[in-house]
Amino acid sequence: MNTPKAVVLLSGGLDSATVLAIARSQGYELHAISFDYGQRHRFELAAAEKVAQANGVTSHVLFRVDTSIFRGSALTNDIPVPHNRAESEMSSGIPVTYVPARNTIFLSVALGLAESLQANDLFLGVNAVDYSGYPDCRPEFVQAFERMANLATKVAVEGGRIRVHAPLIHLTKGQIIQQGLQLSVDYGLTHSCYDPAPDGASCGECDSCQLRLKGFAEAGVKDPVRYVLR
Amino acid sequence: MNTPKAVVLLSGGLDSATVLAIARSQGYELHAISFDYGQRHRFELAAAEKVAQANGVTSHVLFRVDTSIFRGSALTNDIPVPHNRAESEMSSGIPVTYVPARNTIFLSVALGLAESLQANDLFLGVNAVDYSGYPDCRPEFVQAFERMANLATKVAVEGGRIRVHAPLIHLTKGQIIQQGLQLSVDYGLTHSCYDPAPDGASCGECDSCQLRLKGFAEAGVKDPVRYVLR
Repeated sequence: MNTPKAVVLLSGGLDSATVLAIARSQGYELHAISFDYGQRHRFELAAAEKVAQANGVTSHVLFRVDTSIFRGSALTNDIPVPHNRAESEMSSGIPVTYVPARNTIFLSVALGLAESLQANDLFLGVNAVDYSGYPDCRPEFVQAFERMANLATKVAVEGGRIRVHAPLIHLTKGQIIQQGLQLSVDYGLTHSCYDPAPDGASCGECDSCQLRLKGFAEAGVKDPVRYVLR
Repeated sequence: MNTPKAVVLLSGGLDSATVLAIARSQGYELHAISFDYGQRHRFELAAAEKVAQANGVTSHVLFRVDTSIFRGSALTNDIPVPHNRAESEMSSGIPVTYVPARNTIFLSVALGLAESLQANDLFLGVNAVDYSGYPDCRPEFVQAFERMANLATKVAVEGGRIRVHAPLIHLTKGQIIQQGLQLSVDYGLTHSCYDPAPDGASCGECDSCQLRLKGFAEAGVKDPVRYVLR
């Protein structure tokens, strides 16, 4: 029997690095896909490359998405990234860092890659506990995408089944980190900060850094990435 | 009250030109989106541009999708396009011209554009009667995508509703052409052939040409596009 293949969405952040290690631990042949969507900085994609190599992936595709047609997100435009927001603020409403239909677009492209590789399993690092209020990180979104994928594709029509795995969806950031450490994830290779210094050091103050630091505190370990000194 | 906006997927073919005219007749402000996905030829995108202009669209975006990562489709690779297939052959199984997850990817990008324009309505020219056996042209796919879109997006979370309109889905090719002619669609601007001559003339023999010619015969009018002389 052939080894089953998985397509893993890899951002270079903490969550997707953990997901890649989970897919590896389940015995899949790993095919990573990362997206260049005009992020403010390149540290994230460089981190994705390092994480892919460290996991011995069979292939790693960088897919360019021209999001210049999408307006209104701080992650791709000139809107300032918010710093030092209170947790209550983070969990109320959808933040300016929301990119229109981002996970829908990324999962759709990953689905096309999966079909062409004859992979039936997609892995995605979304999380609905310690998250930033994005609608496309919720379990009901993931389920609806999976259902749609099983009507959209040749494999499904021919009797196969596409599965969208979101193994972190109900974990806290601390639990994600604990699980990753059990699987020997090197979090020093990952990058989470929305607004890093020119040398790549994390700001420690954006939503993403705050969630990350909270997670390491919960897990009772020190975050190995560098933060700017203040 | 503001005029509602619609994002219309425009391929340059007969169906999407008809859909654009339908959306226009319903009073929407029109925003067209076309996809460059490494098609074998450029006639289709040139046709999309002409059709957009003829309908007075407010904007027309050309979105480049790098599908080089997807293998196995005659529309983007070196697999020969089949000619002169019998109708029974066309309706059995999924043809080699299938592009992995194509409509899923196109609709996802259109959804991102719709969110950024604050448009709640997407229009798509898929058809489940005179079609080529693509799974992502069926009504159950369109419904599942709409459902997913209403979980994926900010507008839906905030109480709005995304609608995916597929007004041709239950029409024959002949009925589509009749409806288009009532709306003054100039089918001479459209392009359907998968395998045109270097000067743009349609082959008359690929699945797409055969469906088109059958449709014009049913509608009782002559197809205004040029075909190669044999």
